[in-house]
Amino acid sequence: MATISRKAQEMPASAIRKLVPYADAAKKQGIKVYHLNIGQPDIKSPECALKAIRENKLTHISYSHSAGLAELRDGLANRYYKNIGINIDPSELIVTVAGSESVNLALEISCNEGDEVIVLEPFYTNYNTFAFLNGITIKAIQTDIRNGFQVPAIEEFEKAITPKTKAILVCNPGNPTGTLYSRESMLAIGEIARRHDLFLISDEVYREFCYTDEPHFSAMNIPDLDQNVILVDSVSKRYNLCGARVGCIVSHNKEVMAAAMKFAQARLCPPVIGQIASVGALDTPEEYFVAVKEEYIKRRDYMIEYLNSIPGVYTPLPMGAFYTIAELPVDDTEKFAKWMLENFRIDGETTMVTPAASFYKTPGKGINHARIAYVLEIPEMKKALRILEEGLKAYPGRTI
Amino acid sequence: MATISRKAQEMPASAIRKLVPYADAAKKQGIKVYHLNIGQPDIKSPECALKAIRENKLTHISYSHSAGLAELRDGLANRYYKNIGINIDPSELIVTVAGSESVNLALEISCNEGDEVIVLEPFYTNYNTFAFLNGITIKAIQTDIRNGFQVPAIEEFEKAITPKTKAILVCNPGNPTGTLYSRESMLAIGEIARRHDLFLISDEVYREFCYTDEPHFSAMNIPDLDQNVILVDSVSKRYNLCGARVGCIVSHNKEVMAAAMKFAQARLCPPVIGQIASVGALDTPEEYFVAVKEEYIKRRDYMIEYLNSIPGVYTPLPMGAFYTIAELPVDDTEKFAKWMLENFRIDGETTMVTPAASFYKTPGKGINHARIAYVLEIPEMKKALRILEEGLKAYPGRTI
Repeated sequence: MATISRKAQEMPASAIRKLVPYADAAKKQGIKVYHLNIGQPDIKSPECALKAIRENKLTHISYSHSAGLAELRDGLANRYYKNIGINIDPSELIVTVAGSESVNLALEISCNEGDEVIVLEPFYTNYNTFAFLNGITIKAIQTDIRNGFQVPAIEEFEKAITPKTKAILVCNPGNPTGTLYSRESMLAIGEIARRHDLFLISDEVYREFCYTDEPHFSAMNIPDLDQNVILVDSVSKRYNLCGARVGCIVSHNKEVMAAAMKFAQARLCPPVIGQIASVGALDTPEEYFVAVKEEYIKRRDYMIEYLNSIPGVYTPLPMGAFYTIAELPVDDTEKFAKWMLENFRIDGETTMVTPAASFYKTPGKGINHARIAYVLEIPEMKKALRILEEGLKAYPGRTI
Repeated sequence: MATISRKAQEMPASAIRKLVPYADAAKKQGIKVYHLNIGQPDIKSPECALKAIRENKLTHISYSHSAGLAELRDGLANRYYKNIGINIDPSELIVTVAGSESVNLALEISCNEGDEVIVLEPFYTNYNTFAFLNGITIKAIQTDIRNGFQVPAIEEFEKAITPKTKAILVCNPGNPTGTLYSRESMLAIGEIARRHDLFLISDEVYREFCYTDEPHFSAMNIPDLDQNVILVDSVSKRYNLCGARVGCIVSHNKEVMAAAMKFAQARLCPPVIGQIASVGALDTPEEYFVAVKEEYIKRRDYMIEYLNSIPGVYTPLPMGAFYTIAELPVDDTEKFAKWMLENFRIDGETTMVTPAASFYKTPGKGINHARIAYVLEIPEMKKALRILEEGLKAYPGRTI
């Protein structure tokens, strides 16, 4: 029998999604599964985006330009980014198939096979996947759950840099941690990138989900780093249009954008109906985000307090995104999460969390950490957390 | 300044799209450009697909399953494929971001870096791109414009196979040639794949655009080749929903599908609104395809007759898809196409064709070939072809 490639064999399965079959099996048994595991918010998409799809008059769903609809590129550059103080020309932005394609492009463009990219650990597990696909090595810098996963001393970066280092990849606010980096932290990272002439890939897809009064500080606004910064962004994430699969890659570096364009042409164009929704989403009123933030703050506060009240559980207070990393009193969160899906029910319901070890590169790290998303309304979340609490008491591999 | 990767530097620019800036420049001058260069048909998308988008009641455009909406997978397997005599289970099909992702996946899964894939030349230029991205070498087998680019003697395959050969990639009906392979040809290719245990990647995205009375013969129906065939398909192409970006990869080989699933999870999910349109498109009545085929046959007949009436032009009669490769009496079709866009106008209008050299792997081949698509209505096409005819007379690099 013809054998599949080594890459196909060795490709890591998505840790976030590898428990999905167990969840599916539970659902087939009629069990309700509370999904605290994925970043699929239950927040409604903006009405203006939905309207743009429903009321579109197109009779031909044709290809768009490989770089995206001109209207969307213009709207993003001249309305959205301008409004938040990021100055770019539409030509410095290419619409991508969501943030996923944007991350992959940024890595593919900045690093050769065998090169290294520095990432703060824990990090979004698909960074690993995209690095793997491009033969790039992730050099992880450790952070500490006890100080909320903040950027460590800059010496840690200096120590991690080798002649093979080509880029630093940050996620701000962070998935899976929810950590928000201060202006000072971003400037310090920028200084390192400048000193070693590294690309700074800044994944800011959760920018509109920040829970401090200070405005989010974008890597695009680090002084004198124009040619090094590559911004990864997601239109569909921002507007709760996850399924639309629309994002963008942004850089002032013309070589980067010319390369991104070649890759973009290979896949012809980004999803056009999603782009139409995204054009509509540009009209999202400020109140929408205000309401979304208020809701997330309420949920976050509820969840963090609940989690920290469970014996043996510790989680910091995340200031962005809609996730937290929690330390659980278990031997292994992957075994625990699987056990919950297979064995633990209260009134025919169970709760799913994401084991966090795969968010770490350092072997053995994060084995008792889980990523928990506060993407459910409080009454639902309450039930989900109660099941989690009871599950932790009943789990055979508990450590307290 | 931080340097972009070698891959980013060496990535070939899309030959199909690299003339786009010249077309854009012409349009900025107010010139009308007839696009005979791309596979963007002016055929309306099916009403049921458009209706599915307009009348959808979704308030949350959320992620779908990484493998696609269950409704779409079921519908494709149990309605579309069943209806055309291809028997698959929904689990043997993963929804992709159009045919583009499907081709890339098929190559990535079947071949290691350094491996070889056999392709009949001329071939869709992005096969080259995706092979490049995966470090795979394309071994081209030559075909002959004078016999309509038919599958050559099977000895040619034997000659091309080396220990590094892992797959044969065919496109049937073919882009850019419009060539339709007979059942016998497909069985012969299948026999070679079986004998050498190669994957047979069959790109059948133009299956519904066949202009003979015989039904299209799918690689999925080659006997005793279940574990070797990987089908590349496009829902958005089939239903004139090019911008929806929905396709699929299909195989009975469980290892192939498990690998495809891992890759699919890395990009989270295919475009959901496009998938909704695709579910709607499954209701497309047979009459739609009948009318589309009639229209294309009319256009094809008109175009082929016109082209062959121009002195020095030769093109065979394509039996599928909506392209033809024509030999033009010019030094170099790339120079000619660029010259047309920059210099040649009749009443403020010009015509764009795709230079075909990039569809060939063999150096020097196809230099005077162009891909011409019959995607415009006859009155428009007539004007476009007249401009082409006059351009050929006026072009300084003409060879007759």
